[in-house]
Amino acid sequence: MEERIEMSILLDFYGELLTDKQREIMSMYFNEDLSLGEIAELNGISRQAIHDIIKRCHKLLIDYEKKLQLKHNSDKLNIYKKSLLEKMEDLKQSVCDSSAIDYINELKKDIIENI
Amino acid sequence: MEERIEMSILLDFYGELLTDKQREIMSMYFNEDLSLGEIAELNGISRQAIHDIIKRCHKLLIDYEKKLQLKHNSDKLNIYKKSLLEKMEDLKQSVCDSSAIDYINELKKDIIENI
Repeated sequence: MEERIEMSILLDFYGELLTDKQREIMSMYFNEDLSLGEIAELNGISRQAIHDIIKRCHKLLIDYEKKLQLKHNSDKLNIYKKSLLEKMEDLKQSVCDSSAIDYINELKKDIIENI
Repeated sequence: MEERIEMSILLDFYGELLTDKQREIMSMYFNEDLSLGEIAELNGISRQAIHDIIKRCHKLLIDYEKKLQLKHNSDKLNIYKKSLLEKMEDLKQSVCDSSAIDYINELKKDIIENI
């Protein structure tokens, strides 16, 4: 996965574990695609300080994922969700009753919303 | 929920964010039900130091849950899982074909294992 996208996803999962300022700077860099210079100017601190914060938080996010694996588990659940929805669709082939088909469609909607 | 049980569950979710020593002491206290004195003796440090570590880690675990809500989300998913399994069981009433019933049973097993 492209590193910028991965960081943006890890920021969604673990951003709350950073300070407000760290999260804001990481979001400017990885979500809003601002340059180090632009972020430095917006925050009134040096480019080098921004660079250091991003480097440090990058490491923190990678470490959190190694420890808690929220992204990994979420990816796994999403793959399962997709396969479950496909199996529910397959199930429709083995039922003849239209009320059963309606119920399966309702369950699929339910799965999409809740998993 | 009884506080000891809640701490034990939070320790499962967030234990990796503690140091090995912190996790070990918290587990002795909340999982193995050892007293402060027993833990102090086993670790060769004072009862007061153990008390401080437990107090500090207790706060850390509560804070992690406030921020990441892993237990909350897991509880929510488990409630949904239970309701989905019940709905799958209901679905069996609206199908007549035995192969469809077998497929629903297979899907239920699949849900139990994967969610």
